[in-house]
Amino acid sequence: MNATSISLQQRTRKLVEHPRFTGTILTLIILTAIILGMETSPTIVAQWGPTLGLINNLFLAVFVVELVLRIYAWRTRFFVDPWSLFDLIVVGISLVPASGPLAILRALRVLRVLRLVSAVPAMRKVVAALLGALPGLGSIVVLLLLIYYVAAVIATNIFGDNFPDWFGTLGRSFYTLFQIMTLESWSMGISRPVMDTFPWAWAFFIPFILIATFTMLNLFIAIIVNTMQTFHEAEQAEQQWEKDRLEQADKDYLHDQLERIQKQLDQLSRNLEKS
Amino acid sequence: MNATSISLQQRTRKLVEHPRFTGTILTLIILTAIILGMETSPTIVAQWGPTLGLINNLFLAVFVVELVLRIYAWRTRFFVDPWSLFDLIVVGISLVPASGPLAILRALRVLRVLRLVSAVPAMRKVVAALLGALPGLGSIVVLLLLIYYVAAVIATNIFGDNFPDWFGTLGRSFYTLFQIMTLESWSMGISRPVMDTFPWAWAFFIPFILIATFTMLNLFIAIIVNTMQTFHEAEQAEQQWEKDRLEQADKDYLHDQLERIQKQLDQLSRNLEKS
Amino acid sequence: MNATSISLQQRTRKLVEHPRFTGTILTLIILTAIILGMETSPTIVAQWGPTLGLINNLFLAVFVVELVLRIYAWRTRFFVDPWSLFDLIVVGISLVPASGPLAILRALRVLRVLRLVSAVPAMRKVVAALLGALPGLGSIVVLLLLIYYVAAVIATNIFGDNFPDWFGTLGRSFYTLFQIMTLESWSMGISRPVMDTFPWAWAFFIPFILIATFTMLNLFIAIIVNTMQTFHEAEQAEQQWEKDRLEQADKDYLHDQLERIQKQLDQLSRNLEKS
Amino acid sequence: MNATSISLQQRTRKLVEHPRFTGTILTLIILTAIILGMETSPTIVAQWGPTLGLINNLFLAVFVVELVLRIYAWRTRFFVDPWSLFDLIVVGISLVPASGPLAILRALRVLRVLRLVSAVPAMRKVVAALLGALPGLGSIVVLLLLIYYVAAVIATNIFGDNFPDWFGTLGRSFYTLFQIMTLESWSMGISRPVMDTFPWAWAFFIPFILIATFTMLNLFIAIIVNTMQTFHEAEQAEQQWEKDRLEQADKDYLHDQLERIQKQLDQLSRNLEKS
Repeated sequence: MNATSISLQQRTRKLVEHPRFTGTILTLIILTAIILGMETSPTIVAQWGPTLGLINNLFLAVFVVELVLRIYAWRTRFFVDPWSLFDLIVVGISLVPASGPLAILRALRVLRVLRLVSAVPAMRKVVAALLGALPGLGSIVVLLLLIYYVAAVIATNIFGDNFPDWFGTLGRSFYTLFQIMTLESWSMGISRPVMDTFPWAWAFFIPFILIATFTMLNLFIAIIVNTMQTFHEAEQAEQQWEKDRLEQADKDYLHDQLERIQKQLDQLSRNLEKS
Repeated sequence: MNATSISLQQRTRKLVEHPRFTGTILTLIILTAIILGMETSPTIVAQWGPTLGLINNLFLAVFVVELVLRIYAWRTRFFVDPWSLFDLIVVGISLVPASGPLAILRALRVLRVLRLVSAVPAMRKVVAALLGALPGLGSIVVLLLLIYYVAAVIATNIFGDNFPDWFGTLGRSFYTLFQIMTLESWSMGISRPVMDTFPWAWAFFIPFILIATFTMLNLFIAIIVNTMQTFHEAEQAEQQWEKDRLEQADKDYLHDQLERIQKQLDQLSRNLEKS
Repeated sequence: MNATSISLQQRTRKLVEHPRFTGTILTLIILTAIILGMETSPTIVAQWGPTLGLINNLFLAVFVVELVLRIYAWRTRFFVDPWSLFDLIVVGISLVPASGPLAILRALRVLRVLRLVSAVPAMRKVVAALLGALPGLGSIVVLLLLIYYVAAVIATNIFGDNFPDWFGTLGRSFYTLFQIMTLESWSMGISRPVMDTFPWAWAFFIPFILIATFTMLNLFIAIIVNTMQTFHEAEQAEQQWEKDRLEQADKDYLHDQLERIQKQLDQLSRNLEKS
Repeated sequence: MNATSISLQQRTRKLVEHPRFTGTILTLIILTAIILGMETSPTIVAQWGPTLGLINNLFLAVFVVELVLRIYAWRTRFFVDPWSLFDLIVVGISLVPASGPLAILRALRVLRVLRLVSAVPAMRKVVAALLGALPGLGSIVVLLLLIYYVAAVIATNIFGDNFPDWFGTLGRSFYTLFQIMTLESWSMGISRPVMDTFPWAWAFFIPFILIATFTMLNLFIAIIVNTMQTFHEAEQAEQQWEKDRLEQADKDYLHDQLERIQKQLDQLSRNLEKS
């Protein structure tokens, strides 16, 4: 590419990172949120529907232009940054023609509002800290999935024929076990009816509840503790650094003093020998 | 203002801060609590209603006088202190004529009992610590509200027509999603009926439950941890200060010793040179 | 008292603290637990009822004798120790003739089994640590009670006439609010029916749930954290003491060295002056 | 045993610990999981049932051979390692002829999938850390069981005759109390109906809920905290060791310097005396 193109790219970068540009986008996201909220009310839609739709499409056009500018400015680097990809996906969903089998996507247009997270650095930091704790907890997540899978296969095999709505397929068992883990109607709704047919069923449900709720709580608390540590770490590291610096200064002073004393003694010895 | 007025103001200040004065107010608050509790019983009201009402009004008059005195004593500073404003509001509610559309306010007279919190320093400290943790958690609160808003708009758009009681308006969706976050009847009461119409609805409810309960737990634990730290901080700071003081004393002693040795060596050198 | 009586008292003390004596009592407590458990089965009672009752009474007699011996051994000090009083009360409950209006006390005989806690030092320590954390949390407990009281008075005044089963009296409101705090059927069971009459009732229930569950969680976590600290403290204090001892030894060595150097220098100076 | 046998044993050890061998077993475990999952679907079983059963038996044969090899390789040490015993049991369950009264064991074949935990070191570590925290919490577990036992005996004695489904036997009371501890339908489902017969029943249920949920939460959090500490300990110990090493090096330098100064002074004194 020639110099002009590079210079244009750099000017685009400056534009998309300019506080006034990002501020405008942020305002448009908030206005989009309000408009999409208003569109849930039939009375408002009856009166202002076309106007709201027009503004909405206008804002969507601005978002598309913004994304095109950012892709032009960052090129391949745009597609490496997960936040940029997130923006691309949620805006992309709004562009899919929402008719026929994809009508459901129309309701997902509001996901665009989640761009508030990627647009505000403080919230990006919170979400990044929450997600950042996950990789270190892979073992617990796999353990939880394993417990679920084993329990779902057992439940489907044993209870499936008698209670098809709850345990008829592996998928239904997964859903019912999730409900049981949240403790919602696990006894009066599920376990007691099952125990009328299989009296020993408590020996399946109670251990599952103890193990699943405990593992889930463990996972949640581990993520929360890791997240808090991530936030406090930078702060503490700075304090520690300052403390170490002061201690080092003190040690250096001591060593200097001792070395000077030694030199003086050497000088003294030499003087004595001479005399 | 002249000297007399200032002196009167200062004497009022002394009065409203006198332990006997604040103690009397505290006693009246507790008695008000008991009277308002007794007034919930129809049999007691039938027999003692007018007497209780009279005492209640008498106490209310005392609270009004107390507030007038405190406003006179502190002037504008009264309206800057949040606890004073809290006292003013809860007493003010009791003064509004509770008839017609405002009849509900009569039931809110008992909020006056919450003055116990503002009247007892130990409880003030607890509440201040709990509230003091909130500003630092703004990002998580906004994140939680954002998740709610997006989920409510989606639920209203998709499920609103089929389940108007639960998801008919944005407000109802907010309420139902709060119920789902508390896990109350989320599956047997809400999700399973919805899944009869929209079989894939679990793909909306389960992620919402995981994200919302996790974020809420994160928020609660963060506030609790911050509050505990606030309470322990003062204590730890003092211990650290004492430890630092001792270490500094030790360092000073070392430096003094080394300097004295050096001076002695200098003296020695000078003496040798002279001799 | 004369020497014989004192000697007898001291011998009794040795007896009641002898491992074989306390071990026998512990065994009897566990056997009592098993017998009281067996007495819940009508078939076992039909066959072995009188035998079990006889053994039970025999064991009870032993417990009474044990308590008499301990009171004789420790005199007034017995009545100062909370664990001894606990033993006295749970054994005393079993002695009350369980007939007429006191028939319910018969079911409370099993509380005697809780003597396992007072008989095993390790469990005593756990319970003492849990209870020991309470005094420091008085402010939060009072705050929680205050929130309950205010909410109960408001609910009784507003909802009492329309929903007498749930909010008819202050007591019923307390019970229902406790149920709501545990999130059990709060929405489908209580709040939604109430909202059919009072559409704005969510403005009462949702803040109450947020405040009450949060304060309760805060209280629980504070007790748990305090309890853990109590257990770790002794351990950490010992480690810290050992560390401090080593550091002090190091400092002493440094000071000794420096003082010896100074003395040598003084000696040197004096020698030089003499020469 | 002669040299050949020992050499054969050692070669077997090398084989069963070879990464390719353990990797193959891991793959077979995952494939077994998928096959057992597929077997829950009647349509898949109708079409592929015999094939899946054949593969399943083939894999099972491989697992048996693997276990025989490991027992030959490790002899008695195999039966001391809890993970090896776990593998033996879950594979053993699959070998029991699943017919007649043991038909239920057929559903437990999927427990074999839990071998994933014993086959992956990272997951072994997580489970070992979780279980490793239990022994130190014996007191709390016993306390919880004691609370349950006492509450179950009381509930069976008092409520058993009127509510046989919930509190008819000690076992049913245990189950119902567990349900109450999980807060599932405790009030609307159990406590309110019981209070229609025994109006003071809240005095049993509410303290039980407070004590049981609190003790359970305490147990869960204690295990989680201990587990986290186990994971962080090794890391922290290393950091501390490095820090201690640096501090020791610093102290040694100081002592060396001081000793050298002293030696120089001694030399100086001797020189002076000589001169």
